[in-house]
Formats: sequence, C-alpha cells, structure tokens
Amino acid sequence: MSQKQSAMFYLPKVALVGVGMIGGSLTLALKKRKLVGHVIGVGRSQANLENAMRCGAIDEIAGSASAAAQDADLIVLATPVGAMPSLMSQIDAVVKPDAVITDVGSVKHGVVAAARKALTKSLPQFVPAHPVAGKENSGVLAADADLYINHKVALTPINETSEFAVKMVSNLWRAVEAEIVFMQVEEHDRVLAMTSHLPHVLAYAMVHLFAGGGDTEKCYQMAGGGFYDFTRIASSDPVMWRDICKMNKQQLLQHIQSYQDTLGQIGTMIEQGNEDKLEQLFADARSARAIVTEKRKQPALDTDQVPRAMRVRQQVNR
Amino acid sequence: MSQKQSAMFYLPKVALVGVGMIGGSLTLALKKRKLVGHVIGVGRSQANLENAMRCGAIDEIAGSASAAAQDADLIVLATPVGAMPSLMSQIDAVVKPDAVITDVGSVKHGVVAAARKALTKSLPQFVPAHPVAGKENSGVLAADADLYINHKVALTPINETSEFAVKMVSNLWRAVEAEIVFMQVEEHDRVLAMTSHLPHVLAYAMVHLFAGGGDTEKCYQMAGGGFYDFTRIASSDPVMWRDICKMNKQQLLQHIQSYQDTLGQIGTMIEQGNEDKLEQLFADARSARAIVTEKRKQPALDTDQVPRAMRVRQQVNR
Repeated sequence: MSQKQSAMFYLPKVALVGVGMIGGSLTLALKKRKLVGHVIGVGRSQANLENAMRCGAIDEIAGSASAAAQDADLIVLATPVGAMPSLMSQIDAVVKPDAVITDVGSVKHGVVAAARKALTKSLPQFVPAHPVAGKENSGVLAADADLYINHKVALTPINETSEFAVKMVSNLWRAVEAEIVFMQVEEHDRVLAMTSHLPHVLAYAMVHLFAGGGDTEKCYQMAGGGFYDFTRIASSDPVMWRDICKMNKQQLLQHIQSYQDTLGQIGTMIEQGNEDKLEQLFADARSARAIVTEKRKQPALDTDQVPRAMRVRQQVNR
Repeated sequence: MSQKQSAMFYLPKVALVGVGMIGGSLTLALKKRKLVGHVIGVGRSQANLENAMRCGAIDEIAGSASAAAQDADLIVLATPVGAMPSLMSQIDAVVKPDAVITDVGSVKHGVVAAARKALTKSLPQFVPAHPVAGKENSGVLAADADLYINHKVALTPINETSEFAVKMVSNLWRAVEAEIVFMQVEEHDRVLAMTSHLPHVLAYAMVHLFAGGGDTEKCYQMAGGGFYDFTRIASSDPVMWRDICKMNKQQLLQHIQSYQDTLGQIGTMIEQGNEDKLEQLFADARSARAIVTEKRKQPALDTDQVPRAMRVRQQVNR
C-alpha cells in the first residue's frame, strides 16, 4: 500500500542513455503506468534506436548524451559499466539542477568512483542503482514492461547523495513493482560477486570445457536439465560480462579462489571415498536451496529512506 | 510413426524394485498407455510404498526383490546404484528365462560389472539403461506419467545382451515417448560425467561456498536467476549423488581437474585484464548454448537395433 502511495510522481522528460533490454524495460514499465511524458534515447546503434522507437521504449532519438540530458527530469545510464565515465562528464555539463541521475550498473564501486570524478556539479543528484533482473536475450527488442515486478533493486547511495534524489529513485523502482534493498557500495559488490558474477564465470568455464573436449557432439545430445541451466547462464551478453569481470576484479578473484579451494575439497572427498562427508555436504546444500526458495517469496524490507546508520558508515569507510 | 508401431507390446506383470520418482514415472507412463497389467513394487519404506499404491504407480507391495521378480515379465531396477549388486543376486535366482531385466542407473560401468558378477544365469536378459530426466523433488509422489516425453534414454547393451532384450527395452522407452541413444558403457559414463555429474558437483560447491560465507543472509536476499539455477541443481537427492560420485569417481575426478584448470585460466585472464580473450571466451560459450538449444529440438537418431559396429567395439574393449 505504502509502495503504491509513494509512487505518485510524474516525469515530463526522461533521458535513456544506452537503449538495451534493461533500460528499455524500465522506460516501457514507466510508460505503461503513465508516469513519464517523453523518453529521449541515445545509443551507438541507429538500427537499435529505431527498434526502440518502434516498440515504444523511446519517443525520440538524440544525437548525444548531452543533447538527451539537457532538459531531462531523470537521466538513466543504462550502458555497459565501461562506457559510463565519459558519458557522465557530458551529462554533468548540461544537467538541470533539479534533475536526478541514476544508473543500472552491475558493479557499483567503479560507477561511484567515476561519478565522484565526472559529476563535478551534479554528484548529489546521482543515485547508484542495480536492478537484479535479466533475460537470456539482450537488446531493446527483448525489453519487457513487467521485467522488474518482484525483482530486487539495490540502491547504494553515497554520503554526497541528496535525500531528494534517493527518494525519487526509490519511488521510480517501487512504481514498476520492484523491491528496494539499500546496500553499501562495497557490500553490494562483494555480495553480487557471489550471487551473480561467480555463477556466470563458473558457467562460462563449464561450457568452455565441454565445447573444447572430445565428446562435444554426444554432450550436446545428452544435455540434461542441469547442464542446460549452465549453458543458459553462459549465454549472457559477452561484452557486459567482460566489463563486469574487469570492474569487479578483486571481489570476483577472491571468490574464484575460494571456489577453487571448495571444489578441491569436494574432489578430495570423492577421491578418498569419504561418503559420509559428501552426503552431509549435499544435504546441507539442499537445505540452503530450501531457504533460498523461501526467501525469494518474502518481500524485501523496504523503507522510504536510507537507513541513517548506513549513511554514517559509508562516510567513515570512504 | 515407426516408434508408435514398434511400441505394440503388453506386459502382464512388471516388478519395480525401488519405488521412487524415476521408477514410478515409468510405471505410471506404461499404465497410462495400457501397456502393463499388474505392477508389483518393492522398497525399504512402507509409507512410500503405500503412497505408490495410492497414486497408482504400483498395484501390490512385495516383501522382497525375489518375491517381486519371480513371475514378472519385466523387472526394473530403480534403486540408487549402490543397492543394485545384492538385489541382482536375488533376482537372478528366481527370474523367468523369457523375462527382461533393466535398470535406470546414472552410472553404467558399475552396474554392468555388478550384473556380470550377480546375474550368473540371466545376464543376456539384462539391458543397462539410463533415462536422462529428473525433477527437483524425489519420492514416488513426484512421479509423473509424462516425465519421459522427448527425453533421452541411453541404452548401453553389452556383448552378452540378447537382441530380444534390447528390442524389448527399446520399445518400452519409445512407448513412453522417450528417445533412445545407444552408447558404449565407458562413453556413457564419460559423457554423463560432463553433462550431468560435473554440473551437479559444481553447483554443490557453489552453494556450500556461499552458505559458509559471511554474507549468507544478503546472498539469500539478492539471489538472482543464475544463482537460483545453481541452487536448484544442488537440491537433488544427496544419497543418489553420493552414490554417483562413488560409482563414477574416475571420470568425474578427471573432469573436476580439467574444470579447475579451465577456471584457473579464466581467473588469470581476469587478473591480467586480458579483455579480448575473455570476451572471445564468453562469446564462444554463447554460441555453444545456441547449438545446445538447437540440438535439444532435434529427435535422436533412433534405430530398432544396436548398431553392429558398436557391439563389436564393446566386445573388443571389454
């Protein structure tokens, strides 16, 4: 109820910088709920932008990020993380003082560092955000107005971020029926390295291994459900994942190392025929799954404001 | 068409030894198609057997494998692989000379070795089989008459296996709309170690790692789709997977070692910032996924008989 009430806003003009599945799903979701007037999009591929016009994700094509941002009320950065620093500089030069800037990047510390450098005037207007939702297909034609329903969106405001901007971006995501989770920047990157970046790397490694092996044809033929899930995870956008590996390098490498250790321990249990330990480990994993399934059903604890304690901690840790 | 024609058979009495999701799905599927008369089940849990009676997977409960098998036309071994050797001895002592024995084990060389030892009279009547189908839940209440539709079933007949038995078991699985893939025993275990056993171990390792880490609660909260797929794979029956790790130890350990190497290489690419190589590897994995999706749509090449060339090779390799 409070989520619906707090969603009462109207944005006359939204600039979407980077028009893909993630950004397009957001603008389609806002349009479906009649919360935006005009969406102006900017991107590298003219064909993709024309597709975005046709499917209604944007209403107009801008020639540059500056042109798109100059009179926008909300600017959404939805490019791969690597492209953000230079776009931020362009936006900072033209953005209205009461506009809000946000992003959808999967790794937050790099985006925050770039923002601190590039947003010389508009840093308080910027709210780092990460909607945890994805689809196998990329590109604006895969955009879906219902993508974010019941999905988590991490917001990692920094000490400089204005309360107004946080409230605006919270309401934005609640309006499309997502659930807000406030996190610290470093915590976000460490947790997401575990829940998203590591699984992707593991799946890529698995598919790389079997595709380079001697039984590839028979593997294709006999692919069961578990294997198929692995290949699904490994079919995500290569450029996006290359950038994520680069931006979240330290956290990801730590998790890869821990994973190698764990896998080595399981290998030793198998080699030594330690059946009791193996069965216990497998049973524990099954219990963990049950908890994940249960937790996914629960809505996130959602508040209107960033917890004060968190903001103070962010300041200290900076 | 030829599959439907070749499925014309009727089994007055079927013995189901091990009444779980896999075996129960087979008997339900056969009953649905009116291809069996009476199903007699044997198992360790009285409560489970009573559930099996109620859901129609079996019609009668036997007190022992011998009692179930003695006048059966078909005996299906559907217990964990580790339980099969002693059950085979009991069955061998009583089985009718024109009955057919088959199993559903996920690892074939151990089952074949056990059969060669235990089936002193009835070895030619035994067809090692492995339906590649599963569900998250185990137990007979999860059985499903449509489970095998369009799923692969590997048959790994050995040189001793009679043509009659192979034909019977092929027809059995075709009748429930599965697709037969003939494989050699060793090839089966190597390929399945890659497409099924390795992915399960990788998922177990992943869930074990995050469940023992410091961010478990936040990980639960932020679990995205890829992570959720991993936990799903890791929720399979612990005893079954303990047995599979034991029975397919050598093939699995080899794949785990290769996987460790591959993951180490990817870790090095990330560490050294080798972005071109990473992007290429991710793009190759995406292509492999496209092939898997395509291959899953194609029916298996299905013939009425074991390819002659394969039988000869099996003999030589024995």
